[in-house]
Amino acid sequence: MKLNIAVLPGDGIGPEIMTQALNVTKAVSDKFGHELTYKEAVVGACAIDATGNPYPEETHELCMNSDAVLFGAIGDPKYDNDPNAKVRPEQGLLNMRKKLGLYGNIRPVMTFPSLIHKSPLRSDLVEGADFVCIRELTGGMYFGRPQGRSEDGNTAYDTCVYTRDEIERVLHLAYKFAGQRRKKLTVVDKANVIATSRLWRQIAQEIAPQYPDIETDFLFVDNAAMRIIQWPKSFDVMVTENMFGDILTDEASVITGSMGLLPSASIGLHTSLFEPIHGSYPQAAGKDIANPLAMILSAALMFEYSFNLNEEGAMIREAVNASLEAGIVTEDIADGGKIYKLSEVGEWITEYIK
Amino acid sequence: MKLNIAVLPGDGIGPEIMTQALNVTKAVSDKFGHELTYKEAVVGACAIDATGNPYPEETHELCMNSDAVLFGAIGDPKYDNDPNAKVRPEQGLLNMRKKLGLYGNIRPVMTFPSLIHKSPLRSDLVEGADFVCIRELTGGMYFGRPQGRSEDGNTAYDTCVYTRDEIERVLHLAYKFAGQRRKKLTVVDKANVIATSRLWRQIAQEIAPQYPDIETDFLFVDNAAMRIIQWPKSFDVMVTENMFGDILTDEASVITGSMGLLPSASIGLHTSLFEPIHGSYPQAAGKDIANPLAMILSAALMFEYSFNLNEEGAMIREAVNASLEAGIVTEDIADGGKIYKLSEVGEWITEYIK
Ligand SMILES: CC(C)[C@H](C(=O)O)[C@@H](O)C(=O)O
Ligand SMILES: CC(C)[C@H](C(=O)O)[C@@H](O)C(=O)O
Repeated sequence: MKLNIAVLPGDGIGPEIMTQALNVTKAVSDKFGHELTYKEAVVGACAIDATGNPYPEETHELCMNSDAVLFGAIGDPKYDNDPNAKVRPEQGLLNMRKKLGLYGNIRPVMTFPSLIHKSPLRSDLVEGADFVCIRELTGGMYFGRPQGRSEDGNTAYDTCVYTRDEIERVLHLAYKFAGQRRKKLTVVDKANVIATSRLWRQIAQEIAPQYPDIETDFLFVDNAAMRIIQWPKSFDVMVTENMFGDILTDEASVITGSMGLLPSASIGLHTSLFEPIHGSYPQAAGKDIANPLAMILSAALMFEYSFNLNEEGAMIREAVNASLEAGIVTEDIADGGKIYKLSEVGEWITEYIK
Repeated sequence: MKLNIAVLPGDGIGPEIMTQALNVTKAVSDKFGHELTYKEAVVGACAIDATGNPYPEETHELCMNSDAVLFGAIGDPKYDNDPNAKVRPEQGLLNMRKKLGLYGNIRPVMTFPSLIHKSPLRSDLVEGADFVCIRELTGGMYFGRPQGRSEDGNTAYDTCVYTRDEIERVLHLAYKFAGQRRKKLTVVDKANVIATSRLWRQIAQEIAPQYPDIETDFLFVDNAAMRIIQWPKSFDVMVTENMFGDILTDEASVITGSMGLLPSASIGLHTSLFEPIHGSYPQAAGKDIANPLAMILSAALMFEYSFNLNEEGAMIREAVNASLEAGIVTEDIADGGKIYKLSEVGEWITEYIK
């Protein structure tokens, strides 16, 4: 199979972890006889530095012409904490999401037995937790207009907008996932207060009968924020709008104790994108110490979701689990044991696959 | 001192817990020689049943003429899960907040040593956690207009609006609390994405120099959702806008393991209101089994915040702690020990005070 991918390492530790994920991707492609072609491009702070634009047109072209995008991380302290800065790396991220139509962000929340003790939750609550958060990624307050200030600057406003089409496509995506899993979908909204949530709930109620084997339930966002902590095992697939999803997916990811290992996928209209959920970790950049596993597992998601190559994805997962069991791990999870470098972990996994 | 209060028991377990909180309030008033006068009124589902309006004008008048409002809980299953119902109990709640100008909702997050093992978090993370969440309660998406649907019904929109005045008054309230505590204020927003948050951050940065002894820091809402779980002890006072506050305060309250014990206060322009953070718990209504402690501790907050009567508040807290230590507790926290009824717990506390 021809695998044509765009590679956007981004900022901070992005380039280092990407090198390893690419090596793993090559090793798997070779092993299974796929023809891998890829090109790199800039995004984020490094793109601002190089071109003035955090998501340059060339980068966009490259992504549009790819079957999948591997994405590292963006963000640089020099652009942070200045809410009035003209150009910010995050704008690149938001532009990219919008222009590529990345409407569904998927975050599997899974635990790794060897890391359960790192969870802030009591082990009995989190052990075996295994659910998928799906966040609508191109609508809501992130993109609704008008957004801005009154003339005197003393009133600010944002708009949350959702159309039927936007809601339907991400709900169908969520039902598809639920159908392949434990057949339970939780729609999270605030239908007791806001109009967009009432539309979400109405459409979900309309669509639900098309999936008779899937149980649909509804949860207000404040209750969801509690239930994620109190009873994470009660979830199978959760779906919600952009801003609620921003909050809940981050909350859900820390309960596992394995933040540095969690990958994500953003399913798009034109291509799909795969990235670790962690950030650019600037303090570790260039030091060869960050954890490459989330990036490597993002490559596994790419094989599975973009190319339907499940064996290839499974092989990457197996290699990652083997590295954990063998204790070939970076300092964040070494726990008093031997500490390996980022590149050593990546190379071990690549060798394992070969 | 004259204490003129309005009493709104509301729905579900509201009336039962209110009876106990009122008895405690009377006992404390007697003991300290205060002159307590109070009147009751309806709100919520019971008000819809009685008058068609979840927050009737008489109830509003009563509150406006009071120095403080004791509030039980509202909500009834018969009005739930029907997003298109014309009148909902929640509307009463929102009207009440808006008309009374209850701009600052305050939720102390505290742990009780005897209940730490009920926390979903590892004890070492939550033991000693002690912070205050302040949620703006009369602005943002809850009240912003326009809100509604396009003519064809296929597009829905909400508006989030904040004015300088709304932001300033709740920030000053938060600084006041921080000044009386560990002198650290965390302002939670999403200034990297939305305009209202950028106004919040700008105003907080302008105000901060007026409080030179208080350390102000900023946190994005998604990070806050993680930090509440990972490191609750890092917070002293947290302040945020209405919708973020709805989500984060609920999240923060479950980490303690003592949901049934947590009180809250809503500081207003015309009067202030005190209520347990738990809901109307309809399954337990009339059974004399619910936990009255959150309602009783809300009365303690009333003495402290509305009347500046700190000794009186402290006496209620002392009595509540004594009941916990003596194991005079309802089934939700009995943990295999003897189970007392709601009324027995309330009476024990009232006797203790007398
Ligand atoms: C950086 C920021 C704009 C972004 C978001 O809010 O979507 C981030 O928090 C994320 O979740 O990917
Ligand atoms: C019932 C609902 C309207 C309300 C809110 O969202 O404010 C509740 O969740 C709360 O936090 O008091």
